[in-house]
Amino acid sequence: MAAAIAYAERTAGQTGQSPAVGCVIVKHGKVIGRGHTQPGGRPHAEAAALGMAGEAAAGADIYVTLEPCAHDSERGPACAATVTAARPARVIIACEDPDPRTAGKGIAMLKAAGIEVQCGLMETAARASMAGFFARQTLARPFVTVKLATSLDGRIALPNGESKWITSAAARAHCHLQRARHDMILVGAGTVRADNPALTVRLPGLESRSPARVMLGSGGAPEGWQALASPTDIGELPGNMLFVEGGAETAASFIRADLADRLLLYRAPIILGAGKACLGDIGLHDLMTAHDRWRLVDTRMLAKDRTEIYERAIAPDQ
Amino acid sequence: MAAAIAYAERTAGQTGQSPAVGCVIVKHGKVIGRGHTQPGGRPHAEAAALGMAGEAAAGADIYVTLEPCAHDSERGPACAATVTAARPARVIIACEDPDPRTAGKGIAMLKAAGIEVQCGLMETAARASMAGFFARQTLARPFVTVKLATSLDGRIALPNGESKWITSAAARAHCHLQRARHDMILVGAGTVRADNPALTVRLPGLESRSPARVMLGSGGAPEGWQALASPTDIGELPGNMLFVEGGAETAASFIRADLADRLLLYRAPIILGAGKACLGDIGLHDLMTAHDRWRLVDTRMLAKDRTEIYERAIAPDQ
Repeated sequence: MAAAIAYAERTAGQTGQSPAVGCVIVKHGKVIGRGHTQPGGRPHAEAAALGMAGEAAAGADIYVTLEPCAHDSERGPACAATVTAARPARVIIACEDPDPRTAGKGIAMLKAAGIEVQCGLMETAARASMAGFFARQTLARPFVTVKLATSLDGRIALPNGESKWITSAAARAHCHLQRARHDMILVGAGTVRADNPALTVRLPGLESRSPARVMLGSGGAPEGWQALASPTDIGELPGNMLFVEGGAETAASFIRADLADRLLLYRAPIILGAGKACLGDIGLHDLMTAHDRWRLVDTRMLAKDRTEIYERAIAPDQ
Repeated sequence: MAAAIAYAERTAGQTGQSPAVGCVIVKHGKVIGRGHTQPGGRPHAEAAALGMAGEAAAGADIYVTLEPCAHDSERGPACAATVTAARPARVIIACEDPDPRTAGKGIAMLKAAGIEVQCGLMETAARASMAGFFARQTLARPFVTVKLATSLDGRIALPNGESKWITSAAARAHCHLQRARHDMILVGAGTVRADNPALTVRLPGLESRSPARVMLGSGGAPEGWQALASPTDIGELPGNMLFVEGGAETAASFIRADLADRLLLYRAPIILGAGKACLGDIGLHDLMTAHDRWRLVDTRMLAKDRTEIYERAIAPDQ
């Protein structure tokens, strides 16, 4: 299942509103098929893996990160039917599909065909790999990552506006890798007007993974940008993974609206003192309510900088 | 030597302008004497350890974190003479004494008496344990630690001034332990007028280790406080270890004057957004000069908070 999740993550940020699923087929201790959701959402992972395995899938074990879908679509048949037709011995599933068109029906179809089904293996890791899809299904919006790159004292620029560079090349490369894992990248209108940033993925081999650009704020968006009037309108955006890169007021507006699911912090070992703060007003009125909202899920050093990933510790209002 | 350094650290912040030294005497694999500099600076560690070992010190190995002093004083004889009289086989020293009254003369006296001397064992760790003494000897001022306790976004209070509490009880206890390792604690005049803080060590058994209180700024200091007009006057202060607790402008004034030797950061996993920044203007004019000034020497989690200790990576002007 770990291999299936790793395989699914190759396609993160590429599958639109579909989940990024991974599938590995094992027979007699050997991998005979593997697949992940293809860019745009089709073909599904199971179809790709079964296509590789061919006839050998009969009697094999299929590991898949999400319950096979139970609904036919104009873009392809239901995976549960495709899997059943391949006559595997077992299907091991990480998590049930929250999509009401499937939600347990895929598992029921497999079981009705006499296939042994296990569900729940590495569920937490698999859900994390499909965070955008789960946000879309349960919250009707993309999963939102807010990135902040600061000095030790929480600054993002000198009083004169100088901000290149606070973090190291290693931290900036890590950030570009995160961009590649998102469908969409958003900055405020002020940043667009000041810099008209490319926001591309500048990593060898990943240039094609640059996310679609979204501008938050009023006024027309330039060529190549989609405009978004308010953070609360993010449900309208096409993808499932939204990367919010700044500036301070834009980042604060997502936190204020309780629409930040993950904080990605980069912190350089420098002190700036006076300068531009990393965040504007988030509408906090007392310290008690600031606590227990974020939990650290990962941290590591990137050259001299530390990166920290926090995720919400309190479920958002639905 | 590690035991001698650990022993020395028990007396950190208690020895005035004298070094906090540790001494361990070993014979036939057993510790027969140990001592550290006593509060106020006398007796010295070697005298304390030799007093415990008695006649058995003859032929023993003496581990001491600093070269035994070579100068008699009205407060006691030179340690090099006392050690020589005890007729040890070997004296193992972590670092030479930078005090010009000793600086190599102590070692020379021991060697002249036919005692084997080794110098340099665990020198870096020993110097760190006597950072205040080395700052006093080489910079004619105390070693300065600047403490900042902030949110993830570098804030120390809400816009309405609320600041209790940002960090956890565990982080605050750690901070009190750091207070106990300093002779003196300094806050700005504004903080004194607003809060008249006790700044005591509120840890069981360490209440007596509360540092002397120093107020930075103009205007008369209240009863129980010493006034300091400017950070550049810290050479006048009696102790070797100065703890700067705030507020933001006071902390910035020490960094601006290149008088911050160590940054002690506590960081709670909360976001405040608008509010009071942890630091005021440090006089920085370009980003290039912000880099490579600080290196991380320690970090750990304290309950949900992270503490980080940075030390200067560039020697101060002398």
